[in-house]
Amino acid sequence: MIRNKSPSFKLLIRPLVRGLHPYVYGEQPKIKGLIKLNTNESPYPPSPKVLAAVRAAVDGRLRLYPNPTAERLREKLAKLHRCHADNIIVGNGSDELLALATRCFVEPVVAQASRLSRASAGETPALRCSIVQYFTPSYSLYPVLADIHGAARNAVPLKSDFSLPSVTELKDRRGKPPKGGTPNRWDFRAALTFVTTPNAPSGRGYSTHELDALCKAQRGVVVLDEAYVDFAGENALKLALKYPHVLVARTFSKAYSLCFQRVGYFVGHRELIAALHKVRDSYNVNGLGQIAAEATLDDLPYYRANFKKIITTREWLSRELTKLGFRVLPSRTNFILARPSRFSAPAWLQSLRVQKTLVRWFDRPGLKDYLRITIGTAAEAKALVRAVRKILTRR
Amino acid sequence: MIRNKSPSFKLLIRPLVRGLHPYVYGEQPKIKGLIKLNTNESPYPPSPKVLAAVRAAVDGRLRLYPNPTAERLREKLAKLHRCHADNIIVGNGSDELLALATRCFVEPVVAQASRLSRASAGETPALRCSIVQYFTPSYSLYPVLADIHGAARNAVPLKSDFSLPSVTELKDRRGKPPKGGTPNRWDFRAALTFVTTPNAPSGRGYSTHELDALCKAQRGVVVLDEAYVDFAGENALKLALKYPHVLVARTFSKAYSLCFQRVGYFVGHRELIAALHKVRDSYNVNGLGQIAAEATLDDLPYYRANFKKIITTREWLSRELTKLGFRVLPSRTNFILARPSRFSAPAWLQSLRVQKTLVRWFDRPGLKDYLRITIGTAAEAKALVRAVRKILTRR
Repeated sequence: MIRNKSPSFKLLIRPLVRGLHPYVYGEQPKIKGLIKLNTNESPYPPSPKVLAAVRAAVDGRLRLYPNPTAERLREKLAKLHRCHADNIIVGNGSDELLALATRCFVEPVVAQASRLSRASAGETPALRCSIVQYFTPSYSLYPVLADIHGAARNAVPLKSDFSLPSVTELKDRRGKPPKGGTPNRWDFRAALTFVTTPNAPSGRGYSTHELDALCKAQRGVVVLDEAYVDFAGENALKLALKYPHVLVARTFSKAYSLCFQRVGYFVGHRELIAALHKVRDSYNVNGLGQIAAEATLDDLPYYRANFKKIITTREWLSRELTKLGFRVLPSRTNFILARPSRFSAPAWLQSLRVQKTLVRWFDRPGLKDYLRITIGTAAEAKALVRAVRKILTRR
Repeated sequence: MIRNKSPSFKLLIRPLVRGLHPYVYGEQPKIKGLIKLNTNESPYPPSPKVLAAVRAAVDGRLRLYPNPTAERLREKLAKLHRCHADNIIVGNGSDELLALATRCFVEPVVAQASRLSRASAGETPALRCSIVQYFTPSYSLYPVLADIHGAARNAVPLKSDFSLPSVTELKDRRGKPPKGGTPNRWDFRAALTFVTTPNAPSGRGYSTHELDALCKAQRGVVVLDEAYVDFAGENALKLALKYPHVLVARTFSKAYSLCFQRVGYFVGHRELIAALHKVRDSYNVNGLGQIAAEATLDDLPYYRANFKKIITTREWLSRELTKLGFRVLPSRTNFILARPSRFSAPAWLQSLRVQKTLVRWFDRPGLKDYLRITIGTAAEAKALVRAVRKILTRR
């Protein structure tokens, strides 16, 4: 159909883009009766009031453009977080905002080299190091965003129990020469630092106190990515209102059962927020997503009841799996990371799949021995425990 | 609330971004009874079948992630356009795709300078000129996208009647030195060329024959932006399936009454499409938008009937305004560009506003004498003509 007359795609597509690997999506199998505990979605539907509000908006108004800045939603969020609407930007999921932050605060490698050479000629002030920095393991999108932007990246390991190294430890590590390429030294002058808090995929929570110390020590922008914070005991939102260089990322996807509609937001200093507004698409948040998110904020008690149920199920499941010989890490999220007993994690993945239960396994260093299990309903947790017992009996 | 302790935003935000001007949005006034003919939205609601399909999908499934590549929608579009799903990428409105194309095919200025110096050292093959190119006037987003990306841009004027210069004319113009900075010379080696076809804001249509000649002469990627093509007599989709370097942009916003839901798409060679997939966000198209677009494709006769009504109204309105002394340009879109009689365009804008009719005026060279009027319903067109008569009588 397409006349492929020796197209010189090497000349058409940027070398940077040609060098990127296509993203491999998580499995979305269509097996009947499958218990899907692999993608951290909430097991509960949105509030009936949210569904009613969205249905009521499905009419001739779909022909009109949505509000370009999600004005009403920002005002409601500002009220909730006791700040100003200028401290908030809404995105097409928080993923869009993480990408915008990379483009807004980090120089691509080549541009950086050029600016540094100008800086050495005395034209610009001394530059912080223009890299994207993050702990490992954490959200696997961060290195992808750095690569797409052509930015340098710095991945620094968490401690072996997935806790956050203290500022003193990070400073000490700076002094040590990296062994075999890793671990890298922490950079307090990184242009952009992403911290997943609570951490994914470990589920570990971090105290506002330790996050405050880290933020205080950083010179560049810090994004505290709180995608799972509603399942934790505390959140660090106040740091976004305390420090001019700190942004907190939130999403309606997981805790608020709205993955389908793509709504996330950043809270932070209005100067950073204004810069992000300049680089986003004009109508980046779809209208029904805005309406769903607004209605969500009008019915928070429904969601808080869900958080409690999920936390109760999480604690029950952690105890039951521990009894069955699993080593379950403490979680402050809607998933647990567990080291299964008797045989390997990928073998468990397969055995559970045969029992029509889908969990997640990461073929990455430090994670290979673990399964990540999303907390579903109480019934789904019971079914999982039954499946585990069955597998242990049979093998 | 925010402790603004001497934040050094100059160090936090990229110089490129600091230099950008915030986008100024089109007016969305909330005046009761206003006839809104300023933003080219369809006056007709989406098909009842589309509304029913979206309403039926508003349930517990909103908690799940949407299909990451809009798979079903791409398959339906492929069937419609007689190509493969690999020839299509769906975006959060076609605006997102225009931005992705800029990032995917154009080197930022600094990176380009660096690559050119390497090229001269024999490291890379001879480079095409890495600029974003477009005609003026056309969609005002193109220079904004170039600026956000830090890319060089080349704006070349259309002919005085907004028709497309021929390849021969563009080549001739290359020889002439630019007067007073403009007009710029056309660049056949531009990395990315945007062509709005039919043109906005003039409404003029271009033949597939002349677009083919232009595409054939270009060395870089060409995006034929067909946002308004359903109101024209022909479209150039076949060029995206004929040339490996040509993409056609379409949107569900205007002709398909779905501005609110943000769905647009590109058709083109699968190598270019694959490159664009690599740089987009993982879940860039919201789920209800995908469902609305799919249902739209199942009820095309409803929309084709609307196109006919809008075209009939457009022709009627053009005749009536001509009778009243306006100079109306021929339009192949859902709007007309008209030079009003007796007094200036901005004065007309104000007078019409007093009559509760909102149209658009552009304070840009070559457009200052015109009003752009979106084609609404027949009743809205009649009301506009009544308002014009009233104004002419009074003044």
